[in-house]
Amino acid sequence: MNVELVNTGSELMLGRVLNTHQQWLCRRLADLGHVVTRQVAVADAGKEIQGAVREALDRAELVITTGGLGPTSDDLTRELIAELLGRKLVQNGEVLAHIEAFFAQRNRPRPSMTTVETFVPEGALVFINRFGTAPGLAMTIESESSKTAAVRAGQRARKWLVMLPGPPRELRPMFDEYVVPVLKREFLDEIFVCRTIRTTAVGESRVQEMVEGGLGPLVKRGLETGYCARPGSVDVRLTARGVQAQALVLEGEALVQQVLGANIYGFDDDEIENQVIRMLVEKHKTLALAESCTGGNIAHRLTNVPGASAFFLGGVVSYSNSAKEHFLSVQPETLRTHGAVSEATAREMASGARLEFGSDLALAVTGIAGPGGGTAEKPVGTVFISLATEAGVDVRKFLNPWDRETFKQATATQALELLRVKLNSA
Amino acid sequence: MNVELVNTGSELMLGRVLNTHQQWLCRRLADLGHVVTRQVAVADAGKEIQGAVREALDRAELVITTGGLGPTSDDLTRELIAELLGRKLVQNGEVLAHIEAFFAQRNRPRPSMTTVETFVPEGALVFINRFGTAPGLAMTIESESSKTAAVRAGQRARKWLVMLPGPPRELRPMFDEYVVPVLKREFLDEIFVCRTIRTTAVGESRVQEMVEGGLGPLVKRGLETGYCARPGSVDVRLTARGVQAQALVLEGEALVQQVLGANIYGFDDDEIENQVIRMLVEKHKTLALAESCTGGNIAHRLTNVPGASAFFLGGVVSYSNSAKEHFLSVQPETLRTHGAVSEATAREMASGARLEFGSDLALAVTGIAGPGGGTAEKPVGTVFISLATEAGVDVRKFLNPWDRETFKQATATQALELLRVKLNSA
Repeated sequence: MNVELVNTGSELMLGRVLNTHQQWLCRRLADLGHVVTRQVAVADAGKEIQGAVREALDRAELVITTGGLGPTSDDLTRELIAELLGRKLVQNGEVLAHIEAFFAQRNRPRPSMTTVETFVPEGALVFINRFGTAPGLAMTIESESSKTAAVRAGQRARKWLVMLPGPPRELRPMFDEYVVPVLKREFLDEIFVCRTIRTTAVGESRVQEMVEGGLGPLVKRGLETGYCARPGSVDVRLTARGVQAQALVLEGEALVQQVLGANIYGFDDDEIENQVIRMLVEKHKTLALAESCTGGNIAHRLTNVPGASAFFLGGVVSYSNSAKEHFLSVQPETLRTHGAVSEATAREMASGARLEFGSDLALAVTGIAGPGGGTAEKPVGTVFISLATEAGVDVRKFLNPWDRETFKQATATQALELLRVKLNSA
Repeated sequence: MNVELVNTGSELMLGRVLNTHQQWLCRRLADLGHVVTRQVAVADAGKEIQGAVREALDRAELVITTGGLGPTSDDLTRELIAELLGRKLVQNGEVLAHIEAFFAQRNRPRPSMTTVETFVPEGALVFINRFGTAPGLAMTIESESSKTAAVRAGQRARKWLVMLPGPPRELRPMFDEYVVPVLKREFLDEIFVCRTIRTTAVGESRVQEMVEGGLGPLVKRGLETGYCARPGSVDVRLTARGVQAQALVLEGEALVQQVLGANIYGFDDDEIENQVIRMLVEKHKTLALAESCTGGNIAHRLTNVPGASAFFLGGVVSYSNSAKEHFLSVQPETLRTHGAVSEATAREMASGARLEFGSDLALAVTGIAGPGGGTAEKPVGTVFISLATEAGVDVRKFLNPWDRETFKQATATQALELLRVKLNSA
């Protein structure tokens, strides 16, 4: 089955916002066995939207659009698609009642502009928007021209067009609540299995060299492989379709495990922070942080993990020297002699955090995020990461000469990876 | 001029990664006056990539592809495009020397798989990859078929196809260093002006109602308007083309300022955190944080701003009650009587942080991020935000009943907005 996404929005084409719908919808659809075959983004303009939707309907049995259903003058998708398909727009009482109630609950008058949202294409299935006003819409299409094209291509003649609102907080629950049941009823679930194995410390081409010999026979039987390099890590992706899919992917995974074992930090959506929290819970170890240059990024990532509060006690973002002294008991003498970015300061930050929080482990980072602050001896990107345990303090030096945000992200990842390896070996 | 992007990568279609190239390249191209007319993403498969590139070349004068230039077996873009255009792949000595040097510098043998990266389509312009191995490529195309289509559509017969590597750290500097000069030389700069005005506290349809009357005459003269709702804020976008563009956008901006003045927190890429740091610097006020449920997110966002260190002294991520007592002098009695998530605790956290850091201002948050921990009286999403100044402590209560990450992001935004308003009025 062919599935296409059409994302509408001039803000996408101007690069003002990130298109998070693509990733979210592609993931959800793949989980249902429907891998998206093409995604297209176009501006909020008649020719563009109608052209993209017409072409998508020619190729695919399911087309999902996002955006352009709201009340403002640049929300054109509903009208343009109704026009394209020759459907009249008719007012829907249920939608009107919902929007009236939405504003009544908030003690605000209903803006008259929202009336446009109550008009839906004749015959459309209506998805009430629990987190906003614009409803989602779904229509089946059996036009002559697309029937001919479909029959020619051996596809089903009946196609589905689904329109979802742009805000992610509205789109996501609507997809799960309304669209998934339609898909399950209207389209056969296909068996599709996808497994991502996440590795660190080996380059992309070396990873493939290490695993491809073993995977060769499975690839001949239908396993597909993919590799994706990220900062500091490489994903190995194994996918398969059909009744053999699960067995093929499991065999492939076992082979990759054998070869890359120690370099694997997780699977699928695992992040290092999830692994760290899982291991802290398993081993009943508490953790504290002392962050200078990462400015709270490590704490932020750890606290994204539900349940982090049980073993993550907290951290100090010690941006100033006085905060390092006051909260972490770093000696003024150390700061004076070695500087804030030094092995000695990193060491005292970690042992200070461990002492002050009373934790089993403490992780500390100090470095120069830039763009200012570098010297010949300590250029921008210099960072010291230290880990205090009951056995003592380890300090490692890194050079991450990247832009400020990449620096923070990469440094946080290195620190979490040091902790993961320590927890793994303990 | 029509410009299209073709993003290749099965990981995109499976929803395993976010397509950040679209936003980044669309933004850069719009800044040069070339608004991308269509963006397409397809899997790493012959039929898909060749189909998407062929169609893009039929419509556009400039086509940029991303991804699929690496050394692994799923990197197919270079070979498929060479085949599509009937170009031979020939080894390039400069690329080979670069890749040899790349691995020599890292004291690692060059993986034999990287040889494939040294072969480039005959006649292509080669962009050496300063942050990786795979070169970027650019080709001009004057094939008969596309010439005919172009002449028919009144376009230039000579088209450009640019291929860039997938990793953002490689693509971005390569675009700026190599592609921008080619664009400036080959394509006339068009005048295009885009201004985004960022507002809070008013809904999307109300925003349009407030500004559209005033903007009407400018729209008749060619100004285009757009509205984009985000969690807690609405962007108003003004764009125009041609010699009048700057004047139209400036006039429009002045009108929006008049109507929405107090609700405007910034322009274009301004985030509330940038405004806060700017105002702290201007007013010579120092800031400290006490974060419970946001877990470091506020500190992380503030420290993304270059120069934050001058007036942001630091923060405590006080996830545990003992950390609240030890670092922020919250009274055990307060925690016992009112609980960690309460107005009283929020108040003591802010005044404690102000005292312990010795800062002019201190911002504190405590709440229930979920998914666990809610009660009937204090459901998941309950949050108290407090701001301590020399004049006393203000506390506000919010309910943000969303998923954990949205909760953290929205709560951090509310806290920063409270601070911004206070700094603005002080």
